[in-house]
Amino acid sequence: MKIPVVRNILEVNDRIAKQNREIFDRSNLFVINLMSSPGAGKTSLLEQTIERLKDKLDIGVIEGDIQCSFDAERIAKKGVAVTQINTDGACHLDGNMIREAMNQFDLSALDLLIVENVGNLVCPAEFKVGENMKAMILSVTEGDDKPLKYPLMFQESSALVINKIDLLPYVDCKVENIREAVSQLNRDIAVFEVSCKTGEGIDQWVAWLEKQVWDGKINAGQ
Amino acid sequence: MKIPVVRNILEVNDRIAKQNREIFDRSNLFVINLMSSPGAGKTSLLEQTIERLKDKLDIGVIEGDIQCSFDAERIAKKGVAVTQINTDGACHLDGNMIREAMNQFDLSALDLLIVENVGNLVCPAEFKVGENMKAMILSVTEGDDKPLKYPLMFQESSALVINKIDLLPYVDCKVENIREAVSQLNRDIAVFEVSCKTGEGIDQWVAWLEKQVWDGKINAGQ
Repeated sequence: MKIPVVRNILEVNDRIAKQNREIFDRSNLFVINLMSSPGAGKTSLLEQTIERLKDKLDIGVIEGDIQCSFDAERIAKKGVAVTQINTDGACHLDGNMIREAMNQFDLSALDLLIVENVGNLVCPAEFKVGENMKAMILSVTEGDDKPLKYPLMFQESSALVINKIDLLPYVDCKVENIREAVSQLNRDIAVFEVSCKTGEGIDQWVAWLEKQVWDGKINAGQ
Repeated sequence: MKIPVVRNILEVNDRIAKQNREIFDRSNLFVINLMSSPGAGKTSLLEQTIERLKDKLDIGVIEGDIQCSFDAERIAKKGVAVTQINTDGACHLDGNMIREAMNQFDLSALDLLIVENVGNLVCPAEFKVGENMKAMILSVTEGDDKPLKYPLMFQESSALVINKIDLLPYVDCKVENIREAVSQLNRDIAVFEVSCKTGEGIDQWVAWLEKQVWDGKINAGQ
């Protein structure tokens, strides 16, 4: 009984996400769905990313949280447009939630919309929101066994940002093990090693992201 | 449309979990449901706990993972009975999965059954499995804002194990902030500060756990 219900929810969501995507495309807007476990550093990476890109791109952020708006307040301080979604218990964002939130923006005035999903390494990977690209963060404190234990998000993502590399001397985690495991799941994923605390590696991630946005806009305009 | 479906699943699950609990009670068996984010240290805490308790209590473990059996292999090395549940994509364990797995044990020969849930700070808190008690781990690398962002698990748990305190000098996390936030959500929760890496604080957690098991068995026997 349970599986058909879940399938039905996913099919309905896929249709709504496709409609969202059509609206984003008409506005020539590039959309990223950013996912990770709780505390891996989504908001910290956004702060660093916005700092480096806000003079080049017009950026909007949708913050997904079960409750509260701590992260949205952090992002708002960076001077970009933010809308908060409180899922009220739900463990992921879906197409309908984004449909509501996207109406809070003047989409045609934006180049890049970043959706920060609820902290969860499982369910967000199943629910499209209309994004051009999924990106994920794995922090080294979570351990190098995570790709093989939670494969779907690694399979679905176009980019993996390995965060908290400043803590590598203190934890039992090898970046080469993460890279090896991820390469078995997804050959095309772009992998970055960063520390949102020290700033190491952020420039490479941001340069890559900016290129995706401009390439996406050129393709959409053709 | 979605909310009634979810409610229905939760009600059905509650009934199955209640039946599981009756079976556990008849075997005078104490059951813990152990939850956390991915990589917070559930398996490491279990290894340390089993090491200290296995000569005093007969212990069984149910390992919940989306796929693979790395953690079950680690636990089996400790010389206790283990059963693996692979959820095949599902982000939490439920009563039905435990019903299947519990039949793999001679329940009357066990004192303590530990259920290691899927790594997820959200959904496992909603699904009872028939446990006497929920316990959770938060690692300091996840940040001290997690109780207020993911409150349900903190509200539902009888014990909070704050893990990775050996990393406190290197991260922006204050244990007193976690304690303060948790005290607003759950006055009765027992809080332990441990490092599964150095062993610090584990003895206090294990002593408390052992007392819960014996108290539970005395109450069930009356």
